Amino acid sequence: MFTGLSAFPLTPTDESGIDELAFVRLISRLAAAGVDSIGALGSTGGYAYLSREQRAWAARAAVEAAGITPVIVGIGALRTRQVLDLAADAHAAGAAGVLLAPMTYQPLNDDEVFGLYEAVTAELTIPLVVYDNPGTTHVAFSDELHGRIAALPNVGSIKIPGLTATAARARIAALRAVIPPHVTIGVSGDWLAIGGLLGGADAWYSVLGGLFPETAMSITRAAQAGDSTAAVAASDQLEPLWALFRRHGSLRVMSAAAETLGLAASPNLPLPLLGLDPVARTELNATLRELGLGN
Amino acid sequence: MFTGLSAFPLTPTDESGIDELAFVRLISRLAAAGVDSIGALGSTGGYAYLSREQRAWAARAAVEAAGITPVIVGIGALRTRQVLDLAADAHAAGAAGVLLAPMTYQPLNDDEVFGLYEAVTAELTIPLVVYDNPGTTHVAFSDELHGRIAALPNVGSIKIPGLTATAARARIAALRAVIPPHVTIGVSGDWLAIGGLLGGADAWYSVLGGLFPETAMSITRAAQAGDSTAAVAASDQLEPLWALFRRHGSLRVMSAAAETLGLAASPNLPLPLLGLDPVARTELNATLRELGLGN
Repeated sequence: MFTGLSAFPLTPTDESGIDELAFVRLISRLAAAGVDSIGALGSTGGYAYLSREQRAWAARAAVEAAGITPVIVGIGALRTRQVLDLAADAHAAGAAGVLLAPMTYQPLNDDEVFGLYEAVTAELTIPLVVYDNPGTTHVAFSDELHGRIAALPNVGSIKIPGLTATAARARIAALRAVIPPHVTIGVSGDWLAIGGLLGGADAWYSVLGGLFPETAMSITRAAQAGDSTAAVAASDQLEPLWALFRRHGSLRVMSAAAETLGLAASPNLPLPLLGLDPVARTELNATLRELGLGN
Repeated sequence: MFTGLSAFPLTPTDESGIDELAFVRLISRLAAAGVDSIGALGSTGGYAYLSREQRAWAARAAVEAAGITPVIVGIGALRTRQVLDLAADAHAAGAAGVLLAPMTYQPLNDDEVFGLYEAVTAELTIPLVVYDNPGTTHVAFSDELHGRIAALPNVGSIKIPGLTATAARARIAALRAVIPPHVTIGVSGDWLAIGGLLGGADAWYSVLGGLFPETAMSITRAAQAGDSTAAVAASDQLEPLWALFRRHGSLRVMSAAAETLGLAASPNLPLPLLGLDPVARTELNATLRELGLGN
């Protein structure tokens, strides 16, 4: 399950709650496009900003709308107790796997991060993706820490942050040396994903794929087929979009793009998060048109 | 209210909930010691790990146990909506002020941070302390951002992170130039607090003071009296304790010290946070004895 393209959709949310119709529509589009898995309630899915009840609803709705496509559900929270509850909810919803980032307020040391994964995997009956996302969690996973965690039961994959092609190849090789062979490695940081895909990663945990699944699929399939020239060209073509991701954060860009496509209302991010400002929005819409991704 | 020593106690918590008796006892000790204010549910008070209901209880219990000592209640949360609810709860509990750090999962830009404070201060009828704590929030407050926020209604103080004496003096002078005169500046980062206190700060928002109020009071009163020699000597004497703060985080050190003093059970931090390991605990206890702070 943890190979190929895993698409991470938004959970359109405003101050009155989740836009349930918009969420189900986003999931259905991904299933119809044939992505390999759907990562519901990832960072792009705003898991950190939703209540337990909202997350349980979204997990159930995602599984139902995804049909035969496996759904991986984000279960991160600040307390171990909360994570255990969210894991149980995800399992009850029919999730095929769970995704866990070590959210932090107080900085965690390695033993605390390991203890979290140890407690959660001990209770799981579905596989877990270790979500290494220093940009949101501020946890720096060493290869040694990844090795300790990957040896726990029920760990199925590691989602590593984006690295340049050379660094990705080295990091993936270093990780392979310390993790069991059944644990896959997936890359994120969309503008760097191509380097990871061609550098030995098994999967792309993709923000772009959550809204533009065909585009992300074409890059992934070319990389999987060994056609690195086509894969690199397809990714490089998106550079104007990647530049917006880097400048404003991929969440804000995808949020605005969903509005442009008529797939989410405005606003669709929970405060204090704000959407793109008007200037960036104009730039995004021009970029989407140039890339043939707009309406 | 936002001057002198503001003492920030632990909220002893385990997997079954808050140790209510221990919390009330900690608050009562601070009031009896004559601290200038009490910062309940600060970072040391574990606000980020507690439910709304637990926080409302702790706010009420702190105000009751504090008697005439003003209580400042931490109201930070990831969503603006949650912060507004927590502010209302703190007000209903009788808090004299509130303390707000811009908690983050997705990194926030300046407009998002400002928008949070704008929304919250517009609803307040008690003063707010802007809690600038990059070690937990990863928000970098520029002087310009502090100036914008301090100009909002109901802002009473700014709690800045620890800086060396020279840097603290410069930062405090730079902030004074951009904030209204009624807004006080308080320092945190206990091992650097003396530099801030002698560099023009009005208050010390103190972790040490939450468990050892007399010790923190003696440093604060010497600094307030202009006796910089005595103030520096009193702070420097604590260097073995400051070294443990730097190495393990002040929260874990104070948690273990509360156990040593018989003021909290073991464990008293919510998982995944772990207490000090046995080696560090032995070192802490020896340090407390040497400093005359142990039992």
